[in-house]
Amino acid sequence: MSKESQIKTVEYVDGAARMIDQTRLPTEKVFVDCRSIEEVGNAIKTMIIRGAPAIGVAAAIGVSLGANAIEAEDFDSFYAQLEKKCDALGRSRPTAVNLAWSIDRMKRVARDCKSQSIRQIKNRLQEEAQTILQQDIAANQSMGSFGQTLIEDGSNVMTHCNAGALATAGFGTALGVIRAAVNAGKKINVLANETRPFLQGARLTAWELMEDHIPVKLITDSMAGYFMQKKEVDVVVVGADRIAANGDVANKIGTYMVAILAKNHNIPFYVAAPISTLDLSLASGAEIPIEERSADEVAEINNKRVAPLGAVIAHPAFDVTPNELITAIITDKGIAKPPYTESLKQLAGETAKV
Amino acid sequence: MSKESQIKTVEYVDGAARMIDQTRLPTEKVFVDCRSIEEVGNAIKTMIIRGAPAIGVAAAIGVSLGANAIEAEDFDSFYAQLEKKCDALGRSRPTAVNLAWSIDRMKRVARDCKSQSIRQIKNRLQEEAQTILQQDIAANQSMGSFGQTLIEDGSNVMTHCNAGALATAGFGTALGVIRAAVNAGKKINVLANETRPFLQGARLTAWELMEDHIPVKLITDSMAGYFMQKKEVDVVVVGADRIAANGDVANKIGTYMVAILAKNHNIPFYVAAPISTLDLSLASGAEIPIEERSADEVAEINNKRVAPLGAVIAHPAFDVTPNELITAIITDKGIAKPPYTESLKQLAGETAKV
Repeated sequence: MSKESQIKTVEYVDGAARMIDQTRLPTEKVFVDCRSIEEVGNAIKTMIIRGAPAIGVAAAIGVSLGANAIEAEDFDSFYAQLEKKCDALGRSRPTAVNLAWSIDRMKRVARDCKSQSIRQIKNRLQEEAQTILQQDIAANQSMGSFGQTLIEDGSNVMTHCNAGALATAGFGTALGVIRAAVNAGKKINVLANETRPFLQGARLTAWELMEDHIPVKLITDSMAGYFMQKKEVDVVVVGADRIAANGDVANKIGTYMVAILAKNHNIPFYVAAPISTLDLSLASGAEIPIEERSADEVAEINNKRVAPLGAVIAHPAFDVTPNELITAIITDKGIAKPPYTESLKQLAGETAKV
Repeated sequence: MSKESQIKTVEYVDGAARMIDQTRLPTEKVFVDCRSIEEVGNAIKTMIIRGAPAIGVAAAIGVSLGANAIEAEDFDSFYAQLEKKCDALGRSRPTAVNLAWSIDRMKRVARDCKSQSIRQIKNRLQEEAQTILQQDIAANQSMGSFGQTLIEDGSNVMTHCNAGALATAGFGTALGVIRAAVNAGKKINVLANETRPFLQGARLTAWELMEDHIPVKLITDSMAGYFMQKKEVDVVVVGADRIAANGDVANKIGTYMVAILAKNHNIPFYVAAPISTLDLSLASGAEIPIEERSADEVAEINNKRVAPLGAVIAHPAFDVTPNELITAIITDKGIAKPPYTESLKQLAGETAKV
């Protein structure tokens, strides 16, 4: 029922991972073709593409491109080269688990095809990358259907960072829930936090919602509390980069702050993410690696210095929101409620069975 | 005992209000001479000068410049013209009460000199502007002495916006407390929130603390919760633009958010402001006018658009922190503790007696 977003964040076409360059939005709409796994890794590292599910899809295409470039006579030689390339790709960004999840899945497919010809394995990996992309689109639709039931008609929905079409291959996780609510005929107003330092809210979320004619008001992160105090926020929905077994959620820096504010104003706080964002190997969020990015992303805006030269600057790119601040986690397999250790395991198990 | 800051934020010299242009810091250190009350009003409006106490001082100099420019034979004609100029100046920014406080004080001085010659009245107003400036310097020192007793040796102190030398004629309110603690031999590390949209934390607070060799780490506003969660914040000290009789505090947008975060992490939250920032005519913060500034200050950074064209953008420049989130209010007359309705009234009364 839900309409797809028209934004093509990442595609596998003409032997390339074609991406919209997210560092240049909203002023320029430029597409970049990555023709090698190394170029894909670089695009992930420099945030030409970002958003956990989109990174997962891009990585799958990257592994396929990497496989295609390998010249090998036998599987062992092929796989050794593939693994080396995958290791490098896996180091491009540390926090979003979808990257590792996607690479592991592609490697598993390669191993499962061990007895086939190198040509056949390459074809199989190409298919698998397309499957991962298609499954991400479907997962978005599924999250949207489950999640929109939690959003009442007439709601003012706050979101942080960009968990939309630009963060996925489909119509988004958090913004997918919003789009599904809109598609279900509900009147929704979005408050988008600008999300310093990278300004994904200003540059990406505001842009893609405006493209879809969904009302959106842009605010600075520092205004989140103000609008909650004024009762102009009914519900918060954000995405996730990694979810631990206990439901602790790593997401874009500032998410924890928004969750604390929501709790203090009795506002429901929802996380929307596909099961591929779940990392059951980690008992709690304390084990999630937090990427420290370049201080220049804080100190310079539009290539102009806003901080004094020589200033000491911190740039943790993510934070961890403890499970007790999260009202529910919306996944493509259903809605998990506390206690998450049980509910998430159950949803993940249903996935494993599929 | 406390050293003064070497930064001359505003002075009354050579028939002008000389200000450091705060819109061009930290990359350029340029001084601006405002030679008329209208130029002072414009400097306040465009934030060449900002910070409640500094606005108060600049306004006093502005009124003196305005008086000097009046050609009148008798007091009534003189005062009518002065009042008109003062009304326009008073509309330059609405939230900081120091603006109205300073203008009212200058007008009162003019009225008290009614029987004197116009020349004498002009001289008296010039003296009064210098007195207001000197009293602001003294108030900073006094706040520093009182406030530093609340800051333990080895503390990590978070501050929001700029309540430093650049917000006053002296060494600052919140940063004055920090400087006084440093001058008392305490080891202090400051966490400065960058304070979007105008970036006073990045551009001004980090700069002036670095000038004074006080260790400072710059973070985005969205990181405030993260560093509290990591126990890297021991105490918060901020300034104020207006304080209601019940202790509700209007300050730079984002202050309320920081106060909520502090409460949730059991971190003391202090406000430092001179008694001139107190507005006993307002029972609570709900009555404080909140300035809505241009959306362009959110949408454009360094003259480059970061938000899509046509985006709906909010820009409340201040928020109100309710008194129950404030551990104590540090004034130049002493430290007010809850219940503020009593403690603030008492401190204000002592001022009135002086």
